[in-house]
Amino acid sequence: MNILFVGDIIGRAGRKVFSRSIDDVKYEYGLDLVIVNGENSAGGFGINEKIYKELRSKGADVITSGNHIWDKKETANQLDNMEYLIRPANYPEDVPGNGYITLSIGVTEVTVINLLGRVFMNPIDCPFRKFDEIYRKVKDTVVIVDFHAEATSEKAAFGFYVDGRASVVVGTHTHVQTNDDRILPEGTLFMTDVGMCGSLDSVIGMNKDAPIKRFLTGIPHKFDVENKGKLVFNALFFEIDENTYKVKRYKKIFKVFEG
Amino acid sequence: MNILFVGDIIGRAGRKVFSRSIDDVKYEYGLDLVIVNGENSAGGFGINEKIYKELRSKGADVITSGNHIWDKKETANQLDNMEYLIRPANYPEDVPGNGYITLSIGVTEVTVINLLGRVFMNPIDCPFRKFDEIYRKVKDTVVIVDFHAEATSEKAAFGFYVDGRASVVVGTHTHVQTNDDRILPEGTLFMTDVGMCGSLDSVIGMNKDAPIKRFLTGIPHKFDVENKGKLVFNALFFEIDENTYKVKRYKKIFKVFEG
Amino acid sequence: MNILFVGDIIGRAGRKVFSRSIDDVKYEYGLDLVIVNGENSAGGFGINEKIYKELRSKGADVITSGNHIWDKKETANQLDNMEYLIRPANYPEDVPGNGYITLSIGVTEVTVINLLGRVFMNPIDCPFRKFDEIYRKVKDTVVIVDFHAEATSEKAAFGFYVDGRASVVVGTHTHVQTNDDRILPEGTLFMTDVGMCGSLDSVIGMNKDAPIKRFLTGIPHKFDVENKGKLVFNALFFEIDENTYKVKRYKKIFKVFEG
Amino acid sequence: MNILFVGDIIGRAGRKVFSRSIDDVKYEYGLDLVIVNGENSAGGFGINEKIYKELRSKGADVITSGNHIWDKKETANQLDNMEYLIRPANYPEDVPGNGYITLSIGVTEVTVINLLGRVFMNPIDCPFRKFDEIYRKVKDTVVIVDFHAEATSEKAAFGFYVDGRASVVVGTHTHVQTNDDRILPEGTLFMTDVGMCGSLDSVIGMNKDAPIKRFLTGIPHKFDVENKGKLVFNALFFEIDENTYKVKRYKKIFKVFEG
Ligand SMILES: [Fe+2]
Ligand SMILES: [Fe+2]
Ligand SMILES: [Fe+2]
Ligand SMILES: [Fe+2]
Ligand SMILES: [Fe+2]
Ligand SMILES: [Fe+2]
Ligand SMILES: [Fe+2]
Ligand SMILES: [Fe+2]
Repeated sequence: MNILFVGDIIGRAGRKVFSRSIDDVKYEYGLDLVIVNGENSAGGFGINEKIYKELRSKGADVITSGNHIWDKKETANQLDNMEYLIRPANYPEDVPGNGYITLSIGVTEVTVINLLGRVFMNPIDCPFRKFDEIYRKVKDTVVIVDFHAEATSEKAAFGFYVDGRASVVVGTHTHVQTNDDRILPEGTLFMTDVGMCGSLDSVIGMNKDAPIKRFLTGIPHKFDVENKGKLVFNALFFEIDENTYKVKRYKKIFKVFEG
Repeated sequence: MNILFVGDIIGRAGRKVFSRSIDDVKYEYGLDLVIVNGENSAGGFGINEKIYKELRSKGADVITSGNHIWDKKETANQLDNMEYLIRPANYPEDVPGNGYITLSIGVTEVTVINLLGRVFMNPIDCPFRKFDEIYRKVKDTVVIVDFHAEATSEKAAFGFYVDGRASVVVGTHTHVQTNDDRILPEGTLFMTDVGMCGSLDSVIGMNKDAPIKRFLTGIPHKFDVENKGKLVFNALFFEIDENTYKVKRYKKIFKVFEG
Repeated sequence: MNILFVGDIIGRAGRKVFSRSIDDVKYEYGLDLVIVNGENSAGGFGINEKIYKELRSKGADVITSGNHIWDKKETANQLDNMEYLIRPANYPEDVPGNGYITLSIGVTEVTVINLLGRVFMNPIDCPFRKFDEIYRKVKDTVVIVDFHAEATSEKAAFGFYVDGRASVVVGTHTHVQTNDDRILPEGTLFMTDVGMCGSLDSVIGMNKDAPIKRFLTGIPHKFDVENKGKLVFNALFFEIDENTYKVKRYKKIFKVFEG
Repeated sequence: MNILFVGDIIGRAGRKVFSRSIDDVKYEYGLDLVIVNGENSAGGFGINEKIYKELRSKGADVITSGNHIWDKKETANQLDNMEYLIRPANYPEDVPGNGYITLSIGVTEVTVINLLGRVFMNPIDCPFRKFDEIYRKVKDTVVIVDFHAEATSEKAAFGFYVDGRASVVVGTHTHVQTNDDRILPEGTLFMTDVGMCGSLDSVIGMNKDAPIKRFLTGIPHKFDVENKGKLVFNALFFEIDENTYKVKRYKKIFKVFEG
């Protein structure tokens, strides 16, 4: 089974490079499932039904998210119409939305879990224990985790904690692809961060002027998605063995396009 | 001029993989200068004269550091004996030590600057403005910056801020190599993080048990350098054009060795 | 029923002013119960069996704690011998120790709950929901909460959240007594922070030199309890109506002694 | 010389209680100067020319601020029309606005300095060193500092650092009045936080529902100023000896009014 995990899609530039690239990548890798992190897909902050439908129509099967999931006011009310969108599972239990989803890909069941880290992030329930709780229910499926977190230490610790239980742990949130994709000792494919889809010459997808001014002056400036210039497409491909649920091969993707 | 920048060396494992690898890499790339981040080289926390001399004798020409520079009590008093060690330049001005160093490599002068980021880190002077201040003095030399920071946004903003002034900006601190090494529009070679030298199957160089316990329980546990298992050597090679001071070619290095 | 809640006891100076003051205060207010925050009672960081016994022998009936509870390595192993010490209840459930304690004071049962805030603090379970969980079990008793937290907003929000359920919410952790003690609309006595017992001319109980140097230079310096000079005793007295479980009267205490 | 320092004015409720109280307080204490922290005076977030003029017309002579100074987009452009508004002095030097102001009160010159702390706050220049720099210029005047900061340790360390140089250090930002007003060993009047003017039954001036929901769910909710219910007026009065520049007497004010 061939799966692609695509990094945080940043606004219009991100959607553009996703829609341009995905058909070719699908064809090249014979993809059975496309998972996309969509937390920045609507104007750089959040996601809503309109953008969800656009991503779905272009080829995203499952859409994960992160700390920006609630940035658009309408999102919470539209969750019923976004069946394949998951929000981090470690929000408290009465929070709307689902934290994981199980799909049938042929005869194999695949579960995608979304979790938020806590180091340098807002308070939330423990992602390690929340994984245990969900895993008890889905352990007979292929388990893929989008671990959306800032600190490399927390991401690495999580990878080892679920090593041998999850088939794949893909980090998101920093918008920068790491070069440490590898199989951990017990068989889990791990990567600290898969990166993003968006403008290449940008500050994590945003026009560089506002962040530079902010760092120089301490004065907040409105951040805008960078929609000019070259585009980058970041993803992680992996093939799952349908008998062992282990990853047989994998390849990270870092493609640059003219804008 | 051929230069190698080596990521944070983590304790004994890091020194081991550095000393094992550096001669081959030197030979392979015909290196003229080896810069090493040594902030974790002494037991995972800090550096002192003994370790400094060991790193120097193995081939490190300049040693940069970061937020862990003061972890060993003896360090401040030994700075006079560690001429080629620099500490982050944006510590306040009466703090002991130097924040940059200029060396002659043949007929070319090269300046290495060490700066600390501020996002998710302790308060310190502005690294953007401190760069400007130093740059006024060293602008006729090849400028290489070790930007030691947590947040990818701050690292990217810094890269664009100095684009065309610094020849190279190499990020450190996360201990995870990124896959985004590239030449920015005005000619600066930029990489969010070069990674580390240390144990591969570790939590950023440390034995995984203590961090996992800490994340699970909230109880602090003593962190120990992981000295077992496979070792990883992370670095960035680049060749500087001695006329233009621009990078002519570059290559990131991610080598794994049996322990 | 007359109860005294004493602020964080800081090292030797704090124990000294507590032992000097408590008998007089007990006599003056006719106290039935003395609750003391002991998280800094052992050398400024943590608590252990020896110090616990000292505090108990001087008149502390129940000892609460906070983020410093695990600072002494021996503490976790000595918990069985410290029956009246509670640690924050919102550590994960398999963490050693108890997060609340119920005692009989005459014919009335009193429950003391210890909770940690999360804003500007380390990740931990939600204190709001943990309160709900404990409250279901102890709602027929007088409920007193030591809410150990940094941010005034989190403390205020917690106070309103439990208003009418807890009899008293006393904040701790900042080591500075606030002037906002009052009865909330539904009847809970609330105070953002009760303060500390320790040296008056100190930085929250510590000798001022190390913190000043640290703020000036960014270099860490070892913090030592200030044991010289005047001493301050901070506490909150309140009388509980044994029929309604509401506070009938209360008075904050800020006494200064020559050292 | 009689001076009043009024805590953060929170939106309409804060302006209401200020305008209701200030004439009586002026009369009662024979005030020569009224200093007001106005960082939350416009809708709870920031200040602009309209609100500035309102505060001035009601009796505020000098208006200090803090981290919320830039919350309203128009503020930076209106600074020229707000002569008696100061912003934190430790913003970088080319940031618009002034960080301190010197006024003549009779024959005595009084300087009010505004500084931001750094612990648990956004990166900015060192407030300790910025004080030194300003103090060199204004040391022949009466120096009053509004130290706008979160952590009690940073506020206390600052107080001791300037003890004997500043006449008064008043903390702001937490919106909760502390009970620790006192003269430090070298003669500076110090108070960790003076508190606020606004709704009493609120979460630091804001309606309690949004913060409670946020703490419970992790989902951001829009914060609104609480304009209902009782109002609180928090301030610190002090009399300065015009020969020694020392505080002769002082009194903190915590008045509650029906709304
Ligand atoms: Fe993102
Ligand atoms: Fe994110
Ligand atoms: Fe490091
Ligand atoms: Fe570091
Ligand atoms: Fe404490
Ligand atoms: Fe504490
Ligand atoms: Fe404020
Ligand atoms: Fe503030």
